[in-house]
Parts: sequence; structure tokens; C-alpha cells
Amino acid sequence: MRWEELPWLASASKRRRYLVGVSGGADSVALLHGLVRAGFRNLVVCHLDHRLRGREGANDARFVGALAKRLGLAAELGRSEVGKRAVADGRSVETAGRMERHRFFADCGRRWRCPRLLLAHHLDDQAETVLWNLLRGSRGATGMQSEQVLSMAGRRMEVIRPLLGVRREALRSWLEGEGLRWREDASNREGFAVRNRLRHEVLPLLSEIARRDAVETLARAAGSDAGLRDVERWAVGQAAAVDPQGRLHVPRLRELPVAVRRACVFAYLKRAGVEDLGREAVARVLGMLEPGGPPKVALSGGRLARRRQGRILVE
Amino acid sequence: MRWEELPWLASASKRRRYLVGVSGGADSVALLHGLVRAGFRNLVVCHLDHRLRGREGANDARFVGALAKRLGLAAELGRSEVGKRAVADGRSVETAGRMERHRFFADCGRRWRCPRLLLAHHLDDQAETVLWNLLRGSRGATGMQSEQVLSMAGRRMEVIRPLLGVRREALRSWLEGEGLRWREDASNREGFAVRNRLRHEVLPLLSEIARRDAVETLARAAGSDAGLRDVERWAVGQAAAVDPQGRLHVPRLRELPVAVRRACVFAYLKRAGVEDLGREAVARVLGMLEPGGPPKVALSGGRLARRRQGRILVE
Repeated sequence: MRWEELPWLASASKRRRYLVGVSGGADSVALLHGLVRAGFRNLVVCHLDHRLRGREGANDARFVGALAKRLGLAAELGRSEVGKRAVADGRSVETAGRMERHRFFADCGRRWRCPRLLLAHHLDDQAETVLWNLLRGSRGATGMQSEQVLSMAGRRMEVIRPLLGVRREALRSWLEGEGLRWREDASNREGFAVRNRLRHEVLPLLSEIARRDAVETLARAAGSDAGLRDVERWAVGQAAAVDPQGRLHVPRLRELPVAVRRACVFAYLKRAGVEDLGREAVARVLGMLEPGGPPKVALSGGRLARRRQGRILVE
Repeated sequence: MRWEELPWLASASKRRRYLVGVSGGADSVALLHGLVRAGFRNLVVCHLDHRLRGREGANDARFVGALAKRLGLAAELGRSEVGKRAVADGRSVETAGRMERHRFFADCGRRWRCPRLLLAHHLDDQAETVLWNLLRGSRGATGMQSEQVLSMAGRRMEVIRPLLGVRREALRSWLEGEGLRWREDASNREGFAVRNRLRHEVLPLLSEIARRDAVETLARAAGSDAGLRDVERWAVGQAAAVDPQGRLHVPRLRELPVAVRRACVFAYLKRAGVEDLGREAVARVLGMLEPGGPPKVALSGGRLARRRQGRILVE
């Protein structure tokens, strides 16, 4: 691992403060050491004990705390009863875990006045994510982005994934070569069981069938998909289907090809904060453009799209 | 199977002439019967014996010929030594088979003055295609299109896939319910061995892991991907990066976001007929836009991209 040559590490300011998510597993421990070796000093090590693995979880937290101390870094060690939360809120453990992590990172961001969060996702994670998203019915071969602005518990956070082009194996052998330790099973990754099966069963099978490394191929597909989405974003801007009052302009939309129309409506509803935004909601709003289409349409969360005088507004 | 309710069958002219690709396997036999029952009469049954399965292949051809006769339809029964062709041209059997099929369909189109070709690909094929394209490193979750203009051996053909939304199982049970026969192993499908493993190993495994039908999910992903590509096509038009003389306009390209720039260059090179068009070729031409970028770049097939006075032309 030549840490200084990773694009993000090479270009980012080393004096700036960054939060680093560290579970104690190989990936995040490697990221932390790598950052320190590359000269980053103003790091805040953030670890959330999900209270899902009993004593093992507590040991992970202790390990991460000790590691931060040894490296002379600040640490935020949080804990959350994710299992109980999931039951109380009627959510899956994965969803509850993600929400608790987001809340924790947002808290850390507030305390340290730092909106920048580094996460240790790597190329193998990216390939698994592409498959996982495909299986969940997301649009296309969507992966993670190397830099992304996310709203975490209402707080704007810049998520950065410097290792997204690096293989898992490269991180492990680097740690081993350097004699650095990590906690083997520490992971708060969502959908852990599913991801494990994708990693250990599906990706090897696909690689064997295709006679090439499916991890590289799928991760590259995520890259092209991200490019297509950039093009889509630009196209929505060019389409200029939103009027100065922030309403959808019906005559303008009607002039557009149906796929562009759909992209504009999707972007508009998303921006309006409509929840559970899926194909059906977009199709219903598109139906309002047709001759004789309904003048109002119910959306999730009690929201309403209303057409009036050639404009559509979400209330 | 309610044939009349399939969108394409419901809206297409029944008096018009169509070529139908019929291997003799369940899918294409079902399509042929379904078309006839829905009232299509002006059909030309097109079958190519690839000469890869010896006597079985000859029996397939005989079966298809007899079926056409029984239905009172014209038939084109061709044969091609695909195996020998592959060896002579140094291509894979899959590629040679596709090229020979294209040539055959183009011949049929010429003889019958008919550019319309119906193929029996269904939803399960679509899911396999998405996986296959992902594994081959295509961009995103690309599938087949239900209507598409293809150049086959230099001839413009309109390929129509009326069954792309129908499950394989629905076709088989319809055939069985109607007491109709087909040839079990007749298939000229490309990458047969790989496709078989995707079908019998990968898709069931993915369905089990995701606890939902992976065929439906992957096929739907292909639909969204097609939408994204429509948006991309529109964006390339809007970008207007080609000047009236048909050259890439460098200053205009430089104003565009990098993903749009890439889409414009890709579309331009494709239109110019550059072969083996991949990420690298596009990246090299994009490099010509940078300050100090090379004034010419070699492309495959001995083609050359040349920059002169703020324009790029492929020679």
C-alpha cells in the first residue's frame, strides 16, 4: 500500500480535521494507520458499539480506544442499544443500526465542528454493494460514491471513501506485513449475513463462470453508473422543467422525451422531500401530464401533488 | 397466456409482414403459435441450422419447416458451418454464430423486403443478459430492448421482442396446456454454457439470498438502465458538441461536466464507426481536450483522431 499515492490522500489537506469511522476491523484499522503514516494528524476516531455482540463488542471498543490513544488521536466511543431500538421502532436491525450510526456520526460532527467523515469501504465492498442494490431493485448497478454529501440525522455530512479503489486483500496483507493488529469480526456493516453470502458464494461463482475477477468488473460497472447519473443530473438542469416559483412546468415537461420527463419528475419529488420515492409515485405524477389526467395525486407521508393552471406543485 | 394482451401484439398491424426467428425451442415455438392465434398471418419463419449439433440440428430444421407448413406460413431454412467459420476467422463460436445469424436474417429481410424481425427473448433471458453484460464489463445493468434498430451485416433491421416481459415458465406451461410440441434443446443462444450456469446456479442463489425473485428484479433494473440511456442520448443532443462539419467542437466540450463530455465523445466515436470502443479509447480522446493534450490519438482499426484548430475529427 502506497498510501500517499491514493488520490484522495494525495490531494487532501493534512492539517484539516476529519472524523474517521473505525469499527476495529481490518479495513478501518488499515485506513486509520494509513492516514497517520501519510501525515494526517487532526483525526477523530469515531466508534459506535452497537451492543449486538455483547462482550466482543465491548472488546472492540476497548481496542479502538487504545489504538487511538497509541496514535495520539482523539476518540469518540459511543454505544447504542441497536437491537432494542429495532424492536421498539419496528425496524430491521440493519436499518436501526444505520440510523444509530448516522445519529452518532452527526453528534461527533457537531461536537468537533467537523462535517467530514472518512469511511473505509473498499473495492470488494463496492462490488457487493452493486449486487446488493441490484437485488433490492435499485435503479441499475448503483454503488457507493467516493465523495458524497449525506444528510445524517438532519446534519449535512461529507462522506469520503478513500479506499474505494483498493482491494480488501491489499489492506490485509499490508496490515500483516507491518505487524499491525485488528479485531477479526468487528463489523457493523448493514445486511451482514446477505453481504457475507454475496462475498463468499456469489462473487466467487461469478468470477469462475466469467473467468475473470467479478469484483473488478462489478466495481467498474458502479463507476459507469455514477457517470450516467451525472449525465442525468445535467440533463434535468438542461430540461429546465421547474418554473421560477419552484413548480413543475407542465407544457415544458410535455415537450420532453418520456425518459427525461421521468428524470425531471423524480428529481423534483426527491427535492420536495417526498418519502419512499419509487417508480409508482413517479408514474402517478407523470399521469397528471396526460390529457384528462387527474388534477391531484396522493403521495406517501400524506403529501399531495396538485396540478393547477399548467403547473404541478407538491404540498 | 393472453396473447392479445401483450402490448406489442395488441398494437401492431396484423396484416403487415414480419420475419420470426424460430430455433424450434419452446420460446420461439410459443411465440410463433401465439402470433398466429392472435391473428398475425403474414409471417416468415426464419431458421438457421448452425451445424453445431449434427443430426439434432437437422432434426430441429425439419421440425421448424414442418411447423411452418402446418401453420400455412412461409419458411426460410438456412444453414451455416458456424464451427468452421469460427476457426477460419479466429473468432469464438458465439461471435461467429451471431454474425452468421445476422447475415442470415439480413438475407431473409432482403428476399422478403421486410426489415422487421421478431425474436422470442423473454424476461428470464433479460435477467441473464443483465448479469452477463455486468460480467463482461458492460456499462451498468444493460439488458435487451423490446424494440431496437440493429445493423445486421450492413442491413438495417428492426428487432422486436414481444415476450420481453413474459416469464419462461408461462410460455412452457401454455405450450403444455395447449398440447403443442417443441424441440427441447434447440437453442442458438450465444454463450450457451455461461447462460446455463447463470440460469441454473446464479439466479436461484441470488433469489435465495435476497428472498425475492432475482429474475424480476434484474429485468426491472434493465428497464431503468434503458431509461438512463435515453436520458443520456437526449443529453448528448442538448450538449451540441458536434459542429456543422461533423467534427467535435473542443471549446464547447470543455464547458461540459466531465460525464457529459465522456458521453459526447463516446457517441461521436461510435457514430464514426470506431471498433472495439471501450473506456480507454474514450479516455484517450478526452485527453486531447486537456491543455497540452496530444494533437492526435490512435484508435483501433487503424483509425486516427486528430485535433486541429479547436476541432477533433476521426479519420
